[in-house]
Amino acid sequence: MIAPDFTSAFLEQLDDLLIWRRDVRHFDTRALDEGLVDTLLDRASLAPSVGNSQPWRFVRVISPERRAAITAHVEAENACAAALYCDETRASYDALKLHGLEQAPEHIAVFCDTAPHEGYGLGRQTMPETLAYSVVLAVHTLWLAARARGVGLGWVSILNPIAIAQILDIPRQWTFIGYLCIGYPLNANDVPELERTGWQARIDPMKTRFTR
Amino acid sequence: MIAPDFTSAFLEQLDDLLIWRRDVRHFDTRALDEGLVDTLLDRASLAPSVGNSQPWRFVRVISPERRAAITAHVEAENACAAALYCDETRASYDALKLHGLEQAPEHIAVFCDTAPHEGYGLGRQTMPETLAYSVVLAVHTLWLAARARGVGLGWVSILNPIAIAQILDIPRQWTFIGYLCIGYPLNANDVPELERTGWQARIDPMKTRFTR
Repeated sequence: MIAPDFTSAFLEQLDDLLIWRRDVRHFDTRALDEGLVDTLLDRASLAPSVGNSQPWRFVRVISPERRAAITAHVEAENACAAALYCDETRASYDALKLHGLEQAPEHIAVFCDTAPHEGYGLGRQTMPETLAYSVVLAVHTLWLAARARGVGLGWVSILNPIAIAQILDIPRQWTFIGYLCIGYPLNANDVPELERTGWQARIDPMKTRFTR
Repeated sequence: MIAPDFTSAFLEQLDDLLIWRRDVRHFDTRALDEGLVDTLLDRASLAPSVGNSQPWRFVRVISPERRAAITAHVEAENACAAALYCDETRASYDALKLHGLEQAPEHIAVFCDTAPHEGYGLGRQTMPETLAYSVVLAVHTLWLAARARGVGLGWVSILNPIAIAQILDIPRQWTFIGYLCIGYPLNANDVPELERTGWQARIDPMKTRFTR
């Protein structure tokens, strides 16, 4: 088969996509265009997975009661998380907006089937965590597909995975990976929000490279 | 700031990238162009990370002795993994090529710093595994950046993470995420190799979607 040849113009735009992808917490409340969630999940399903096990399970949360319960839970967990910081750091933490649960039109909870039939165990006997990693690869694929269509995504992790599974009545065989807020972003930036707010800047990437 | 507007032509090419990205096990032994590994790692460093902690640690394995030790280790682990299958499934498993360690010109072992200073713990108090997930996001970014440049990547996970850390003399604070073979692929295909060989086909993506 003949693979597509990607042009230098495409490479530049792909760089733009990586540079402008953000963890979004400021959303327009406007609903996504009809069918767009399915379009994005179709792309996510093209992600690599260990043994082709495709263990991702996407749960679109539409119940207002469940969304409210999850938002309240995240707020409570965030109050606990904030309590670990003191003085100026605490003030900086409190000033951060860490989720857009109340504004984002779409909530997707993402789980991993910890014992899928698919793949017959290939590639994961010594590293069962590769199942969860496969789901993370699908989330990233979803993230890029969204951003390319002008849609923002924010990954919420300040929560208790067991509580989320209970609120959503999820099978015990699934483990929680991440809670995604999705919608049109209120603004765009090529610098991470945590860098702009002074919490944590990008580090010199060369400091993460080693040779053996 | 004004974000770039991605064209429908770009969206089609991005779909091609996702569709033609493969886990590559058949490599040309030809070296990568000078500087290309750094170019790819620069892109990987644009990945999202919890609290902007950037916990990825990329170890380029250039020592022939260490590469040989890792290849021998993976072969031994693969023999153990194969022993769990019987009869026809065992024959199918044995016929699979599961890594290109001996042909790929580049080996990159990827680790996660489990206690990075960066990010000050933000976002990971209840889910410390989000550090490892951040590294997986960087691997996927590397994977797509490589494929867009005609370079293939294969993720090897049939191994004991502790053994790899010992062979590479890695700090105890780092946990192993994945071992990557990188090089020019011998062929291209839009269907996963495990589907083509009859091990595991793609499933209907709608079966991975739920509503609550």
